[in-house]
Amino acid sequence: MRLEFYDTTLRDGAQAAGISYSLSDKKQIFALLSGIGIDLVEGGDPASNPKDAEFFQECSSPRLAAFGSTCRKNTPAQNDEGLCKLLATGARTVCIFGKTSVRHVEEVLHATKEENLRMIRDSVRFLASHGRRVVFDAEHFYDGAEEDIDYALLCIRTAAEAGADTVTLCDTNGGIFPDKAYELTKAAAEALPGVTTGVHFHNDTGTAVASSLAGVRAGATHIQGTFLGFGERCGNANLSTIIADLVLKGDCECGVDLTALTRTAHAVAEISNVKLDPAMPYVGAAAFAHKAGMHSDAVIKDPRTFEHVSPEAVGNRDSILLSEVAGRSAVAKKLERLFPSLDKSNPKTKEILDMIKLLEMKGYQFEDADGSFVLLAERMMNAFSPSFELEHYCIKAVRPGGVNTAEVAIRVNGEVTSVSETGNGPVNALDKALRSALIKHFPQIDEVALIDYKVRVVDSSAATGAMVRVLITSSDKKDTWTTVGVSTDIIEASWSALTDSFEYKLTGRGKIV
Amino acid sequence: MRLEFYDTTLRDGAQAAGISYSLSDKKQIFALLSGIGIDLVEGGDPASNPKDAEFFQECSSPRLAAFGSTCRKNTPAQNDEGLCKLLATGARTVCIFGKTSVRHVEEVLHATKEENLRMIRDSVRFLASHGRRVVFDAEHFYDGAEEDIDYALLCIRTAAEAGADTVTLCDTNGGIFPDKAYELTKAAAEALPGVTTGVHFHNDTGTAVASSLAGVRAGATHIQGTFLGFGERCGNANLSTIIADLVLKGDCECGVDLTALTRTAHAVAEISNVKLDPAMPYVGAAAFAHKAGMHSDAVIKDPRTFEHVSPEAVGNRDSILLSEVAGRSAVAKKLERLFPSLDKSNPKTKEILDMIKLLEMKGYQFEDADGSFVLLAERMMNAFSPSFELEHYCIKAVRPGGVNTAEVAIRVNGEVTSVSETGNGPVNALDKALRSALIKHFPQIDEVALIDYKVRVVDSSAATGAMVRVLITSSDKKDTWTTVGVSTDIIEASWSALTDSFEYKLTGRGKIV
Repeated sequence: MRLEFYDTTLRDGAQAAGISYSLSDKKQIFALLSGIGIDLVEGGDPASNPKDAEFFQECSSPRLAAFGSTCRKNTPAQNDEGLCKLLATGARTVCIFGKTSVRHVEEVLHATKEENLRMIRDSVRFLASHGRRVVFDAEHFYDGAEEDIDYALLCIRTAAEAGADTVTLCDTNGGIFPDKAYELTKAAAEALPGVTTGVHFHNDTGTAVASSLAGVRAGATHIQGTFLGFGERCGNANLSTIIADLVLKGDCECGVDLTALTRTAHAVAEISNVKLDPAMPYVGAAAFAHKAGMHSDAVIKDPRTFEHVSPEAVGNRDSILLSEVAGRSAVAKKLERLFPSLDKSNPKTKEILDMIKLLEMKGYQFEDADGSFVLLAERMMNAFSPSFELEHYCIKAVRPGGVNTAEVAIRVNGEVTSVSETGNGPVNALDKALRSALIKHFPQIDEVALIDYKVRVVDSSAATGAMVRVLITSSDKKDTWTTVGVSTDIIEASWSALTDSFEYKLTGRGKIV
Repeated sequence: MRLEFYDTTLRDGAQAAGISYSLSDKKQIFALLSGIGIDLVEGGDPASNPKDAEFFQECSSPRLAAFGSTCRKNTPAQNDEGLCKLLATGARTVCIFGKTSVRHVEEVLHATKEENLRMIRDSVRFLASHGRRVVFDAEHFYDGAEEDIDYALLCIRTAAEAGADTVTLCDTNGGIFPDKAYELTKAAAEALPGVTTGVHFHNDTGTAVASSLAGVRAGATHIQGTFLGFGERCGNANLSTIIADLVLKGDCECGVDLTALTRTAHAVAEISNVKLDPAMPYVGAAAFAHKAGMHSDAVIKDPRTFEHVSPEAVGNRDSILLSEVAGRSAVAKKLERLFPSLDKSNPKTKEILDMIKLLEMKGYQFEDADGSFVLLAERMMNAFSPSFELEHYCIKAVRPGGVNTAEVAIRVNGEVTSVSETGNGPVNALDKALRSALIKHFPQIDEVALIDYKVRVVDSSAATGAMVRVLITSSDKKDTWTTVGVSTDIIEASWSALTDSFEYKLTGRGKIV
């Protein structure tokens, strides 16, 4: 079965708490999603705000869809400002929502059932008569059908008869369960011969993906959602998950390049200024990460044992996390991937594994700190010579006055460089001073930006004397790596993670496999 | 229908990338989850690592479950080290996993089908004969049943006949879809008369919640998952979502206090050092947040229009008026309880609520910091006169050498007291110096012990210049209180939380209502 996917990240996705797209963000996301073959990408509602209107002036594509609503209660369709703005976008596909629930018609719209049918009929007919493909979004369809199925079906039949190419059944509140979604989608699809049936779910019960799958089983072939599940409240149905589910495991076909899903997900998250959930199905950084000892052993023996699809199919890869429960063979495999000489027969391998176990008991965590993991292995293989050594550091913080000073002296090739800097905290001052001292010798340090800093008290019951673990993620635009430091002294822990970060950059290794 | 919920956050949840629980974290999470009525909370696998073994030594509860596996291929059950360790935990409920997929038996276990049945039979019988309630986790049941349903059913029937009270069907790879899950759960439930059927799903296709709901429709009454969906790869079925779905919308009953779901979710995320997904169904900060103008208007007219359940039912709020975490009326209620004069008609109440909102936007969090909350209210009511004032502090850390010194000078009743101390980190040195200076004037400070110290980077993308939040919990054996400090400077943030802690003690308020 050939499916059509309709993405509404730029409209419904932008309703999510914390998301706000600039015009340039919207253009980039449109290019990404249409570029990998999402059939239709909704650009926004030209009547709702000037940014969306501007977007349509600058963007033109057969994959572009514009969103709006049926005409107002007492306005003929051809005089309705919103509908005219929809036409003016030039988008070949227009999607309008209209009501199908009696309660909403009466309580929110303050209209009669007949008035609502008139609004649907005239709006669809008007847009279709101007050569547009009309998608009718039946708002609150499932709730409406549970209240009064005859009226809900009458509404969508009215849209179809007026010329809608596609009727999309929306669960606007996100309250429906998949079994009910199946039943009502089937009833609607049977009532709409010759018309494409679509579905549009929200995730308020945690089942938006499953309801979309159920909708397809019931006859829908047009699926609306947002690429990463962004949306108001609990989000919309996650389109990247649904696409992979249906194509890789559901015998469906589509025009999307599945191997581009993972990199597109990372790019869309980046533009949205959102950290991509590492656990997101298929595309998350941890989606194929194995930690439990027994599981990683089995995956090494046969990937099918704990991988329901091949990570390569969606452009992702498996990764093995290190931890106190990780089996030795998982760590060994990661080591061997990095340093081919470190196979199982190499006695050094056991030595490194033992050291990792010891350090993890002290509070280190190497599963996320890939940069420190590489450096640890290099150090133990005597393959590492430090680029710089600490001569001394001295930090000073005085209150009131608010001055934090760090003096750092490092030795590079016998020469001592000393720099003093102030910062908005002692760690920030230390970071600035070390960076200034290093740049004199290694100009490439200027490319390194610290993009994430995490602090965790390992055993908090020792209060201010407790062990703390610092994780620092660094990036040089091309590659990203994470380093770790542990100490009872937060400054010392930060220092370790910082020096590992710069040392990693100076190895010139780049991407960590 | 009465359902039983089984949480495995402390074992399967700990398999998630980035999660690593200390012994104290595990004890706190156990107390939270069992405290709100989760029927069974799995503590870990005593045979896998020393931390889990220690947990069972310190924790005892009828809600506690211990996890392990069937005996080894050539070992009689009574001689199997893992099974003996399970018994030694003293947990009344033990959960063991065993294989039900022919491929796994042959390729991973290198055993015959008969050997695997012997392992299941003997292990269950051994544990049951020692008076334990045995939960048999049928690993890879769904994949196994698709390959060879007769053998998969034979395995679970063998467990049931050997005395398993509950047989849990596990989709270990997370690859099953809900419709298939329904069908196979029904077949299994029908094959197990008189035995409780359980389900255990992973989220690799984004449908773990939906499969759990399908499992219940097919006859399962025992549902395994993790409270916030944490777990290896894409996570486990999210128990907080499933509980709310089934009880609020599925005509099921359970022993969980649903109104505690939201605050428990925030507390578990905090202990896990994970930012709670604001879009998480029911419990997320944005789960009932309305941004679209039309939607929030409609919600004000009639909440049912865009809310599928009432947010209060899960202890959450719709967040048109919400501060970061706590709802306004919840905070107002708390204020009035502490200071009876601060009722709704007192203009000071609004002033305090506005200040809290402002501070929470800066990164403060008063929900857990009850001590600082009381002091803030007292300060704003002008009911507070500080017991001491900072004259200055100066901290110094030098490496190598490892000396951290803090000099603190405070003014009490016009008199300046200055003390210098060293510590194993600058914050520890500061704590010791302030304490020494205070004890000279207020001997009761000697009773105060800091029992918990937590650091959280509020916006980690600003790296070492980021805002940090420090939470300190203090106790004087009789009472316990928590205070908060926020700054870009971890020492300053710690100083604020420390001084609030001692100030709270000196108010003599004791227990916080």
